[in-house]
Amino acid sequence: MPDVPLPFDRAEYAARLNKVRAAMEAAEIEVLFTCDPSNMAWLTGYDGWSFYVHQGVLVGPDGDPVFWGRGMDANGALRTCYMPPGDIVGYADDLVMSTAAHPMQDLARLLRDRGWGEMRLGVEMENYYYSAKAHAVLTAGHGGQLTDATALINWQRAVKSATELTFMRRAARIVGEMHRCIRETMRPGLRKNALVAEIRPTGILGAEDDDGPFGGDYPAIVPLLPTGLDATAAHLTWDDKPLQSDAGTFFEIAGCYRRYHAPLCRTVYLGEPPPAMRAAEEAVLEGIDKGIGAARAGNTAGDVARAFYGVLEKRGISREGRCGYPIGLSYPPDWGERTFSIRPSDDTVLQADMTFHFMPGLWMDSWGLEITETLRVTADGPAECLANVPRGLVILN
Amino acid sequence: MPDVPLPFDRAEYAARLNKVRAAMEAAEIEVLFTCDPSNMAWLTGYDGWSFYVHQGVLVGPDGDPVFWGRGMDANGALRTCYMPPGDIVGYADDLVMSTAAHPMQDLARLLRDRGWGEMRLGVEMENYYYSAKAHAVLTAGHGGQLTDATALINWQRAVKSATELTFMRRAARIVGEMHRCIRETMRPGLRKNALVAEIRPTGILGAEDDDGPFGGDYPAIVPLLPTGLDATAAHLTWDDKPLQSDAGTFFEIAGCYRRYHAPLCRTVYLGEPPPAMRAAEEAVLEGIDKGIGAARAGNTAGDVARAFYGVLEKRGISREGRCGYPIGLSYPPDWGERTFSIRPSDDTVLQADMTFHFMPGLWMDSWGLEITETLRVTADGPAECLANVPRGLVILN
Repeated sequence: MPDVPLPFDRAEYAARLNKVRAAMEAAEIEVLFTCDPSNMAWLTGYDGWSFYVHQGVLVGPDGDPVFWGRGMDANGALRTCYMPPGDIVGYADDLVMSTAAHPMQDLARLLRDRGWGEMRLGVEMENYYYSAKAHAVLTAGHGGQLTDATALINWQRAVKSATELTFMRRAARIVGEMHRCIRETMRPGLRKNALVAEIRPTGILGAEDDDGPFGGDYPAIVPLLPTGLDATAAHLTWDDKPLQSDAGTFFEIAGCYRRYHAPLCRTVYLGEPPPAMRAAEEAVLEGIDKGIGAARAGNTAGDVARAFYGVLEKRGISREGRCGYPIGLSYPPDWGERTFSIRPSDDTVLQADMTFHFMPGLWMDSWGLEITETLRVTADGPAECLANVPRGLVILN
Repeated sequence: MPDVPLPFDRAEYAARLNKVRAAMEAAEIEVLFTCDPSNMAWLTGYDGWSFYVHQGVLVGPDGDPVFWGRGMDANGALRTCYMPPGDIVGYADDLVMSTAAHPMQDLARLLRDRGWGEMRLGVEMENYYYSAKAHAVLTAGHGGQLTDATALINWQRAVKSATELTFMRRAARIVGEMHRCIRETMRPGLRKNALVAEIRPTGILGAEDDDGPFGGDYPAIVPLLPTGLDATAAHLTWDDKPLQSDAGTFFEIAGCYRRYHAPLCRTVYLGEPPPAMRAAEEAVLEGIDKGIGAARAGNTAGDVARAFYGVLEKRGISREGRCGYPIGLSYPPDWGERTFSIRPSDDTVLQADMTFHFMPGLWMDSWGLEITETLRVTADGPAECLANVPRGLVILN
């Protein structure tokens, strides 16, 4: 086997592959193609910013997974995956962003070469990196039936291993440092980009735990930090304008360690927050406590949402929709795991060592408030907060 | 009209819309749906990190474009788009990452509501944000024919306006500052993440031109900076290991101003580079000169590639594939414009004020070398380099 430094030991990769094969069997899938970069990394170790071209990992009926991608990225797979070179396959650069030919023709050829050309093939129909065109070309080129395997691997990632939890705890330490940086740096008149220029390097410099210092990786989403009226929207980034007094800014950020995320949002007010925002803060803080209390092994995702919404309803605050999602290993454009959701209609049963971002943000008519936690479900008792950052509205003047 | 601060004036947005409608007519498309975030921003001003859920812009036969997205992101559209609130449509949060219902059902309903339900609908079959599932659901829900409109808008973006060029020149100033930072900071023993923690804030702090200082935006790709054997691969990011002497590191980075990019790659060697790398440097520098000379209005993309490859061949260096791509406004996961390619087979005729990243990177058996330029095609004469950064291998000890 190649001597590649991997984030996890070989036994853990073998166990992951076994879980995926069991799920494939249950879904009557003979060969699986995943192009979700998070699934690719989780199965093989592959790590690189190459997901803007077609690539993926094949899991056949036996043997190691097979990396397939652009020729220059096969070089990256040789540097980051545990499979031998024979299971790392590159395609010609002519196929990249071409209208004359499509990489999926090459994938269909690889499937035939491996003897998998007539097999029932699982594909991730709902994925950023599996385009409508890719599906059309692969469907035309593959001799067997195609079937939707969206989230099949993602579900296997839901319960975290001990090493994964170590990585997420490091990510949580990092996001704690990032929030400390915000509290120490933010002030009226500072340009917002200058504030980002403090937060981001803090996340990249990393933090330390009992094993010493460690560096940070890039989170799958850039910092979101809208102020005032802009904070009525959930996903605005930054500009180069000076920060104004008498306005709230929420910070939706994550620490990241070796692609594992710990998102954590806090809200800062420069000045004296309006009473409605204070009332909302009180409601959200109580709602978070109730949600954490309900996030127990055996309860459902819906139980957590209902515990939170019960408080909001009691206090007369109107909100609906998702208030959380599973997290872990991820690549842009999303740090979520894209399986279940924390919302009243979701009956997913929580298990110990599942991790999710409990995200009950409020986007109101004239301001926004985000106070959130990254949680680990424990074997018995309320969920554990992976980070340790004071929850209340941060008031700076 | 809403009073939204836009990056471009209304006349420029109107001209863009006219160009798109002319291209739609030529392609016999009655209504166009774009979900490419770069196309959305270019047409409407929309800016937010919300492309991880289904969203897009509709261009109907007349009237303003229509923003369609998740409810909370419609709030973002109200803050960033020029259209009136009646042309900003949000869908229910229940549809987000649900297996019970799909946002494209809502889009089909919106098309019907607007009277466009039977029309020939253009969709971007080859796009990160148009999944195979989205296409299947929209095809089932729409009463008219669907047709592939991949890159229809992207092609309208190829020739840059005066304001766009101002933005790209600012991005180029920023990337110049980032490379200065590398030359001043990089040294053996420095952890690689600590180096990234210097480069990224430099890009975000920005630079200045005759109009004063300006801040930087996030580039669509994170810094790629592999060292030594890792630099045989094109797209590896960073780790937290100390930088070693006697190895080369290439830096594939971009400055970004209001989503407009100026990528620029340079290579640093800590120590004395091997003779083969020096020979390659000489070849690449000559090839870049020749390529810039060939990048003239009226010549083709293929002419630029052939001018470069002619030098490499003469000097006995083997390389194939793309050596460049158009650039401008972009969002993750790619800063390219995804229309033509700088490669010998591409017959696209270059026009004045087209911009591209001339990217003749070399990924060899034991090292990599990236020296690149962001170019603007001029009306007469060789292309203009937007940045001003010395091209040679940077030797640090």
